[in-house]
Amino acid sequence: MTTLGEIAAVSSTRLQGCDAATVVTGIAPLNRAEPGQLSFLTHSRYRQFLAVTQASAVILSTGDAVDCPAPALVADNPQVAYARAAALFEPVAETKPGIHPTAWISPAAQIAADAWIGPHCTVEAGAVIEAGVFVGPNCVVGEQAELGENTRLVAHVTICHRVRLGRRVLVHPGAVIGSDGFGLALDHGGRWLKIPQLGSVLIGDDVEIGANTTIDRGALEDTVIEEGVKLDNQIQIAHNVRIGAHSALAGCVGIAGSARIGRHCMLGGGVGVAGHLEIADRVQVTGMSLVAKSITEPGVYSSGLAVEPNRLWNKISARLRRLDEMFRRLAVLEKKIDKDGST
Amino acid sequence: MTTLGEIAAVSSTRLQGCDAATVVTGIAPLNRAEPGQLSFLTHSRYRQFLAVTQASAVILSTGDAVDCPAPALVADNPQVAYARAAALFEPVAETKPGIHPTAWISPAAQIAADAWIGPHCTVEAGAVIEAGVFVGPNCVVGEQAELGENTRLVAHVTICHRVRLGRRVLVHPGAVIGSDGFGLALDHGGRWLKIPQLGSVLIGDDVEIGANTTIDRGALEDTVIEEGVKLDNQIQIAHNVRIGAHSALAGCVGIAGSARIGRHCMLGGGVGVAGHLEIADRVQVTGMSLVAKSITEPGVYSSGLAVEPNRLWNKISARLRRLDEMFRRLAVLEKKIDKDGST
Amino acid sequence: MTTLGEIAAVSSTRLQGCDAATVVTGIAPLNRAEPGQLSFLTHSRYRQFLAVTQASAVILSTGDAVDCPAPALVADNPQVAYARAAALFEPVAETKPGIHPTAWISPAAQIAADAWIGPHCTVEAGAVIEAGVFVGPNCVVGEQAELGENTRLVAHVTICHRVRLGRRVLVHPGAVIGSDGFGLALDHGGRWLKIPQLGSVLIGDDVEIGANTTIDRGALEDTVIEEGVKLDNQIQIAHNVRIGAHSALAGCVGIAGSARIGRHCMLGGGVGVAGHLEIADRVQVTGMSLVAKSITEPGVYSSGLAVEPNRLWNKISARLRRLDEMFRRLAVLEKKIDKDGST
Repeated sequence: MTTLGEIAAVSSTRLQGCDAATVVTGIAPLNRAEPGQLSFLTHSRYRQFLAVTQASAVILSTGDAVDCPAPALVADNPQVAYARAAALFEPVAETKPGIHPTAWISPAAQIAADAWIGPHCTVEAGAVIEAGVFVGPNCVVGEQAELGENTRLVAHVTICHRVRLGRRVLVHPGAVIGSDGFGLALDHGGRWLKIPQLGSVLIGDDVEIGANTTIDRGALEDTVIEEGVKLDNQIQIAHNVRIGAHSALAGCVGIAGSARIGRHCMLGGGVGVAGHLEIADRVQVTGMSLVAKSITEPGVYSSGLAVEPNRLWNKISARLRRLDEMFRRLAVLEKKIDKDGST
Repeated sequence: MTTLGEIAAVSSTRLQGCDAATVVTGIAPLNRAEPGQLSFLTHSRYRQFLAVTQASAVILSTGDAVDCPAPALVADNPQVAYARAAALFEPVAETKPGIHPTAWISPAAQIAADAWIGPHCTVEAGAVIEAGVFVGPNCVVGEQAELGENTRLVAHVTICHRVRLGRRVLVHPGAVIGSDGFGLALDHGGRWLKIPQLGSVLIGDDVEIGANTTIDRGALEDTVIEEGVKLDNQIQIAHNVRIGAHSALAGCVGIAGSARIGRHCMLGGGVGVAGHLEIADRVQVTGMSLVAKSITEPGVYSSGLAVEPNRLWNKISARLRRLDEMFRRLAVLEKKIDKDGST
Repeated sequence: MTTLGEIAAVSSTRLQGCDAATVVTGIAPLNRAEPGQLSFLTHSRYRQFLAVTQASAVILSTGDAVDCPAPALVADNPQVAYARAAALFEPVAETKPGIHPTAWISPAAQIAADAWIGPHCTVEAGAVIEAGVFVGPNCVVGEQAELGENTRLVAHVTICHRVRLGRRVLVHPGAVIGSDGFGLALDHGGRWLKIPQLGSVLIGDDVEIGANTTIDRGALEDTVIEEGVKLDNQIQIAHNVRIGAHSALAGCVGIAGSARIGRHCMLGGGVGVAGHLEIADRVQVTGMSLVAKSITEPGVYSSGLAVEPNRLWNKISARLRRLDEMFRRLAVLEKKIDKDGST
């Protein structure tokens, strides 16, 4: 429970047509909000609901504030203002410091006095867990792994040996950080020999790592995720990859070994990046595309194909197989026409 | 161990050329079945084996029963009949009620007297576990999460806080339900600010959720999986998605935020669905296709391309890059010909 | 700490321009190695660094050894030699035999005297854990599952009931082996009925299974991964699949039910394989391709499309939708020209 005044202060918004003392008890979408609730407008298609919303105030842009029929909190960046306001309504996780009696902590691990280690956790020898860290239930922290201040492992997270997480890193359930890279040598008999994976993983400050995402340790040097990177669920990061600061990767992205992704990049869902290439800063790749060679210029890149009715698609893909033939037939025609034209 | 008569009763099949009293001890494929075993014919290409099978009876369709040389259990829907018959041969999981001594249960959780909580489970405060629920080893049930009657978590499942599962839900190992959605606001400095994920996940009755599948909680309202939905392994469901009743999604599907999938849909393996769109009821999408805009009509949709020999594919994809040029060259030719024709 | 002589012996390499007694304390890339460190040259693009490297010796091929300015360990197969040499520098995992006091072992399980069962593990009734097995923290080994000699589960691994792993199998965190296959029968009301999954999974010797990879049990017979197969992270293997010996699958591959992959195959990252088909031995499929029908000949196959600038790609994909029309227009032109030519 808070007031519009407090919300405005936290979210750096300006009150328009509403009272700072109004009490707010929750948040709801525009068309469902009731009096006493906060709402927001971040997509223009919901603008129609401004006239009918019951919300006590709506966070919106200076543009949308013009002639706005609803009480408003006007923001330069409504997304950011909303994020800040919504944080007031998050249930506060109780994180009493201590170690749950069912956790197993190696006597050779170092745990900050105010950290929390939850039920059924395993913390191995040499691990270092810094101040304010929260380790949720059933997590594993391997030998000599380090968790920086205020880092949070939600539940069922595996941090392998020697992996280092920075401060305020948030790791969702099922994520695995520091598994062996897929390093193999082929012997003369066609059998695979494992190449030891001697590097580790270094995760910068303020990184978020989604559920069931996997990040492999480097073969010799470290796999590096720079500060502020946001990784959605079920992402696979292979060994020796480096992801530049403040890049965001959507679900199911796969990055092959030794690829380097720039800073402030955005990769859509299901994108694949081949190994040993570089992507410049500020590159965006749309969903289900394949980056097969380096990208040197910022911009938006794509190779995903959208669905058509199956019958049409079957025709298209049959034709596609004959595309080379078609080009040759076109060239033949062009020659004939030119000759005819010249006669 | 059962008899053909019992099997016929359970599977609603009719005996043809066999004796209800015949004892059956197991199930095997047509070409491997021995006397005393049940078999089935659900694909016509295995029809050849009817003449030679040693099975004591074969579940098959009324069509295949005509002139069938083998003893048969004749079904309207052999797949369904087989599913019912096979259930007789499942090893019965012993689910003695109780709480394993190594489980940790918050004193503020409610556990039905006949539920089972396995080794190394964590059940947090306010969780409600209803009658007949089975929670396998090393599962985590978060604060105020609810598991409906006879729901079953196989092992290593994470149910996050406030998530609600209906009755007879089956969740396979490594699945994560209720992780934070990937909600981010970009500030003026190009840094990502987390948008609190205040919604939850609602799973209907009779839903099955595959191994390592992830379902994110809603940003404000709930992510909803309606009754009877079947999700294969390694599926990613983003925040605020709704999946209509009785839809089935194959492995590695990814659904982006706020997408709405209809009822009785079928998505093939590796399909991607973009965010904020709607798919009508009874839509089928074939494997590795991308749904990039709404689909309003039932039917089959595709955009997956099948492999060719690499050398040919390289030619095709090089030509593809010049497809726009080709259309323009074709149009030029057409003009010339028309002009020539008109002269 | 070892010597060049020992490394040469282990890696079957020949010393050139260096002394067998030289002490080596670690490994580093060519351009970063310091005296006392070993390095290697496996990609020609790093050849330039041979002139400046400080490494005490460089593992390289007989070809690269000619006129090599750096001290060298000359190998027939530098990748294999490197793999063997690097193994000398792996931290030795201490695997004292025993059962961690927090593990829960069914009295009806059989554990070899020299096996190790880590903290918070669950080992169910009838499980058999053979000599030298290492079960890391928070793993689950189901009823009657069997782990062959010297097999290693790193952490958080789920081995379901009756699954059998061979010898020296290495399973990374979060992997799930033996979850139910996605077997469903559609009843007349459009509801899905579960088909019991009565088979199991059989994993051969020397298989490696990546983090969060899932392998489903067979519907009736077993899913089989033959000896020496290497599976990267986040791979999905459906029920009844068979993968031939010594095949390697990169991250995020998905194999649908009953597909059979040959021996010595290599599938790139994100490849999808449809169900009920066969891939011959020694087939390679490049990243993000879809195998939709059987492949009978060895060779390299592809269907992945690489990114273009988004604006160009939008044009291409719009044209692609009209590809059938284009072929027809081309054929019309050809007819006209032929007629004109014949006049």
